[in-house]
Amino acid sequence: MTESTSPKNAAIEFWFDFSSPYAYFASLSIEALADRHGRTVAWNPFALGAVFKITGMRSLSGTPMRGDYARHDWARLARRLGVPFALPDGHPLSTVAIARAFLWLQTSKPDRAVPFAAEALSRYFGRGIDVASAGQIALLAEAVGVDGPEVTKTIQLAEWKEAFHRQTDRAVEKGVFGSPFFVIDGEPFWGTDRMEMMDAWLRDGGW
Amino acid sequence: MTESTSPKNAAIEFWFDFSSPYAYFASLSIEALADRHGRTVAWNPFALGAVFKITGMRSLSGTPMRGDYARHDWARLARRLGVPFALPDGHPLSTVAIARAFLWLQTSKPDRAVPFAAEALSRYFGRGIDVASAGQIALLAEAVGVDGPEVTKTIQLAEWKEAFHRQTDRAVEKGVFGSPFFVIDGEPFWGTDRMEMMDAWLRDGGW
Repeated sequence: MTESTSPKNAAIEFWFDFSSPYAYFASLSIEALADRHGRTVAWNPFALGAVFKITGMRSLSGTPMRGDYARHDWARLARRLGVPFALPDGHPLSTVAIARAFLWLQTSKPDRAVPFAAEALSRYFGRGIDVASAGQIALLAEAVGVDGPEVTKTIQLAEWKEAFHRQTDRAVEKGVFGSPFFVIDGEPFWGTDRMEMMDAWLRDGGW
Repeated sequence: MTESTSPKNAAIEFWFDFSSPYAYFASLSIEALADRHGRTVAWNPFALGAVFKITGMRSLSGTPMRGDYARHDWARLARRLGVPFALPDGHPLSTVAIARAFLWLQTSKPDRAVPFAAEALSRYFGRGIDVASAGQIALLAEAVGVDGPEVTKTIQLAEWKEAFHRQTDRAVEKGVFGSPFFVIDGEPFWGTDRMEMMDAWLRDGGW
């Protein structure tokens, strides 16, 4: 793993793909986890499908046996956490346009970026909405106080397509191969079910 | 998932491959977990490689990026748990002969089967011993009070090769696609890092 030169109060890196159910569950508690330890969260969407081309892994939904388990597990996790869960018919959706919109918001309206991402995951997995269309992305933007047409225009621009490619390249450089994936002061943690370990790591200062 | 017709005090099924580091970590605490809830543990080795042919998944060590993470994670888990961890040079070893020996012990010397399995995982991953050779399997058997030559003769027999194939077929029928994998009253749990959830599931009677 790469050495971190970050100060100890650096943000927790939260790498995720907008089409990842486990990222939805993580998104519901990562801010509170960070806050308990005086940290912030850097939300970093990336294209998991591009990373699968390197690792040879496949989407959960496309993997025999494991896909069945995952569908069972998502419903069980939602019951345990007491949160809504519903998948749109087209799952997994292509969410690259949502990721581009997020990157644009980070630059142009930074206080709207995280609410936009959280709302996207909530609509996709909490309400089972097909959030991938331009019309739905506009509604999503409006829900967090951003002009819908401005967003749908922006996500067509080559500039933000390229920004998302670079973001995915950054994920690969950091060894991020799944979603969600967290990096704390250079230390990697894969999966929602490692958030308890992250909490302990931050509390104990590592082992 | 299949409906279970088991009574509520049924054994926890512990499915594992003898070459799986995460199974080693699970083996150190699964008996205590079961005991807290008045359960026993049914140790069920299977051939993970055969299941990978169905799922298209690959061994952790053979998966780019994920393999690097796994090696880092095993060392970290060992530090957190305060247990020894060392991999033999040839990891992952072919452990089918160990699994056959285990199945034979279950039938012929049932009280020696679990100590044999625990000792195999402990030597492999706690001491970094290449346990796969006939000579090492004999030493392993002797360490738990079983005649070494009897074991090394038994693991050559077609009967136990077939028994292990059937065991792996049973794993597939149950939807077992990884190691360790647990089944509690029909409810599946994949991974060492789900043992906290299993504890809560048993305590709460599910969700």
